[in-house]
Amino acid sequence: MHSAPNLETLDTPCLVLDRTRLGRNLERMAKWVGERGVKLRPHMKTAKCVEVARLAAPAFDAPIAVSTLHEAEYFFTAGYRDIFYCVGLGPGKVARAAELTRRGARLVTMVDSVTAAGAVASAVREGARLSVVIEVDCGEHRGGVSLDSPALLSIARTLGPAYSGIATHGGQSYAARTPAETAAVAKAEAGAARQASARLSEAGFPSRIVSIGSSPTAVADEDLTGITEIRAGVYMFWDLFQAGIGACELGDLALSVLTEVIGRPEGRDEFLIDAGAFALSKDLSTAALPLERRADYGWVCDLDGTLLPDLRVARVWQEHGLVVSARPLAPDSFPVGTRVRILPNHACPTASAHPRYQVIDGARTVTAVWSRTSGW
Amino acid sequence: MHSAPNLETLDTPCLVLDRTRLGRNLERMAKWVGERGVKLRPHMKTAKCVEVARLAAPAFDAPIAVSTLHEAEYFFTAGYRDIFYCVGLGPGKVARAAELTRRGARLVTMVDSVTAAGAVASAVREGARLSVVIEVDCGEHRGGVSLDSPALLSIARTLGPAYSGIATHGGQSYAARTPAETAAVAKAEAGAARQASARLSEAGFPSRIVSIGSSPTAVADEDLTGITEIRAGVYMFWDLFQAGIGACELGDLALSVLTEVIGRPEGRDEFLIDAGAFALSKDLSTAALPLERRADYGWVCDLDGTLLPDLRVARVWQEHGLVVSARPLAPDSFPVGTRVRILPNHACPTASAHPRYQVIDGARTVTAVWSRTSGW
Repeated sequence: MHSAPNLETLDTPCLVLDRTRLGRNLERMAKWVGERGVKLRPHMKTAKCVEVARLAAPAFDAPIAVSTLHEAEYFFTAGYRDIFYCVGLGPGKVARAAELTRRGARLVTMVDSVTAAGAVASAVREGARLSVVIEVDCGEHRGGVSLDSPALLSIARTLGPAYSGIATHGGQSYAARTPAETAAVAKAEAGAARQASARLSEAGFPSRIVSIGSSPTAVADEDLTGITEIRAGVYMFWDLFQAGIGACELGDLALSVLTEVIGRPEGRDEFLIDAGAFALSKDLSTAALPLERRADYGWVCDLDGTLLPDLRVARVWQEHGLVVSARPLAPDSFPVGTRVRILPNHACPTASAHPRYQVIDGARTVTAVWSRTSGW
Repeated sequence: MHSAPNLETLDTPCLVLDRTRLGRNLERMAKWVGERGVKLRPHMKTAKCVEVARLAAPAFDAPIAVSTLHEAEYFFTAGYRDIFYCVGLGPGKVARAAELTRRGARLVTMVDSVTAAGAVASAVREGARLSVVIEVDCGEHRGGVSLDSPALLSIARTLGPAYSGIATHGGQSYAARTPAETAAVAKAEAGAARQASARLSEAGFPSRIVSIGSSPTAVADEDLTGITEIRAGVYMFWDLFQAGIGACELGDLALSVLTEVIGRPEGRDEFLIDAGAFALSKDLSTAALPLERRADYGWVCDLDGTLLPDLRVARVWQEHGLVVSARPLAPDSFPVGTRVRILPNHACPTASAHPRYQVIDGARTVTAVWSRTSGW
C-alpha cells in the first residue's frame, strides 16, 4: 500500500509548514489591521511563496511588499500587481524596476537620497510607471531621511510627479523586550510617518501612501490616524525570537525543520542531527533575550510539535547540528534514526535555505508541497 | 553597442568567482597532495557546481566528496561516479543512497553506530552497492567512534562485506591559530586514521579507504603513511577565516559579493549596501581571531579586488549591510550607486545563498555564468 508522505518518511532535513497555524496567524493579523481602518500590505520576504501569498493576500490586486526585485518579478509573474519593493532603490536597479512596470506592474519603490531620486525621476520621465516613496528614519538609524533634514523636501522636488508618499520601518522594535517598549516604537513609527507626511503636504507634496510597519509594531495598539498601510511579514510564521519578545505565543509558530538523529556519541548527553547551519541558519537572535528564552540554534520538539524542554541545538556545522540536553539522557533515548522538529530563532533565514515547504495541517501527514523562491 | 556583462553593470548583489585565483588554488592543492602519494578527494560542499568540479576533479572517475545526498545525485547526474557522502548516514537515508547505486554510482557512505551500520548492511544484502567507512573521532568530538571504543569492531562486524575503511576529519583545525597548532591537528588526524585502520586490520577488516582531511590540515606537512586520500573543499575559494588562521593568503580568496551602495546617511561615517545577511550570511567566524584579523560580516574591496582597509561590514539585516569606516569618510565618497566587493568570513554559507557564480578572470568582465545547486 502506498501511503501519503508524512513526517516519519520525508527526506530530512526539510522545512515543515503548519497550515493550521499559518491560517490562524494570517486571520488574526488581517482582522487586527482591518479593524483599525488601514490596509495590510503583507511582506513576502519571509515566505517567498505564491501559495502563502494567496492566503495572506487572496486578491491579485491586493498590496504586497517584497525585499528584492527578484521577488517582485516572481510575484508579478504569479499575478500580483501592487508590489512595494521596500529596500532603498539603488541607481543600478532602476532599469530593472522600470522594466517590470512596462510589463504591467504597479511597482512602488523607495529612496532616501537625491541621487537615487534623480535616477528614478529620470526613468519616470522616460515612461516608467514607478511610484516612489521617501524612506523616513523613525529611530532605527538604518536607512531613511531624518525628519528634520532638508533632504526630505529636496528629494520630493527631485522626484516631482513620481512622488507618492513616505514609508518608515520601526526595526528598533526588535530591540524591545516588553509590550510597553514595543508600543513606544509603534508610537515613534506612526508619529514620524505623520510628521513627515505633514511636512511634505505643506510643501505641496500630498502623500497617497503613508506606509509603516514591522510585525511587532503591527500588533501594538497605536493611533493610526494618517497612516494608509501597515507592512508585516514574519507574523505569517512567527518564530522563537518573536515569541521571546512577546509578539506571539509559542503555539503560533508555524515553521519547523524536520531532522533525523544521525549520531549518538557514547557517554555524552547529546546527539547529532542532520540539520546544521544550512538547514537552521546561524541566526542567534534569541541570544539577546533573557536566559530562559534563549534557544541557541533552536528548540527541539517531537514529531507532533510538543516541546522537549531540556533540549537545545547548541552547535551547528554545515550539515550537522548538536542537540545538548540539560539533564542526563537515558542511554537508549533518541537512538540514531529518531526524528525531531526544530523551532527556529528567526523564520526568515531558516526558510531561505529551503527550496520548498512540506505542508501539514496540524498532524503528521503532508497535505501539500509548496515551492519557494530565493536569490536576487 | 552591446557590451559583455561586467562588474559595473551586473545586477547586485551577486556572487563573483575569480577563475584565475580558483585555478591557482586548485593547482597548488593538487600538486601538494599528489606529491605526497595520496589521492585528493575534492569536497564539493563549498562550490556545489559542476563547472568548478570539472576543474577540481577533471576526470569523471576521479573521487569527489559531498555533504548531502542531493549533491551526490547532482554530481552523479553530471557524470561523476566515485562519490563519498561524508556526513553520518542516518537510517532514513539508506534507501535513497541505495537507489543512487542502482543507477550506477559507486557511493561511499559513513556510519558511527551499530544501528546505522545495521541499516546499511541490510540494504547491501538486498543488492545495494554501497561502500561503508566507519567514522573515527580524531579529537573534534563531533561525530565518530573513539579509537578505544569496542563499537569500532562491533560496527565492522555488523557491516560485514560492506566494510570499506575508515574516515576521520580534523575539524578542530578551525580552532588552531598558528601553523604549529594546525600541524598538531594534522598529526592527530593521520595518527587516529592509522591506529583505527590497524585495529580493524588485525581483527580481519582490511581498509581499502583511509580518508582524512580538512582544508587547513590538508596543507600541513604531516606523514601520510597508511592514508589513501585527503578530503578538502574550502581550499578552492578560501576565505577570510582561512586567511586569518594562516591556511592561505588574502590574495588567494576567489570569492566575493558584488554590491551597490544604496544609502549614505548624512553625517555618519558609514554607508548602506544591498548585500545583507542573505547575500553575505551571518557567519562571524573571524570574530574568534585576533583583533586585526576580524572582519565583522566582511572586508570591503574596490571593483578590482583591492582591499579598502578602513571599512568593515559592521551590521547586517536581511537585505541591507552597513559598512562602517574606522576613519572619517569624505562626504562625497562612496555616493549612492558606488559598487564594492565584499570578502566573506566563510565561503560555504556565503556561496550557499546564491543561485550562480559570475565568473571573472582577474578583470571586471564576466566571462562565464555557472549555476550552483543547494538544498537537500
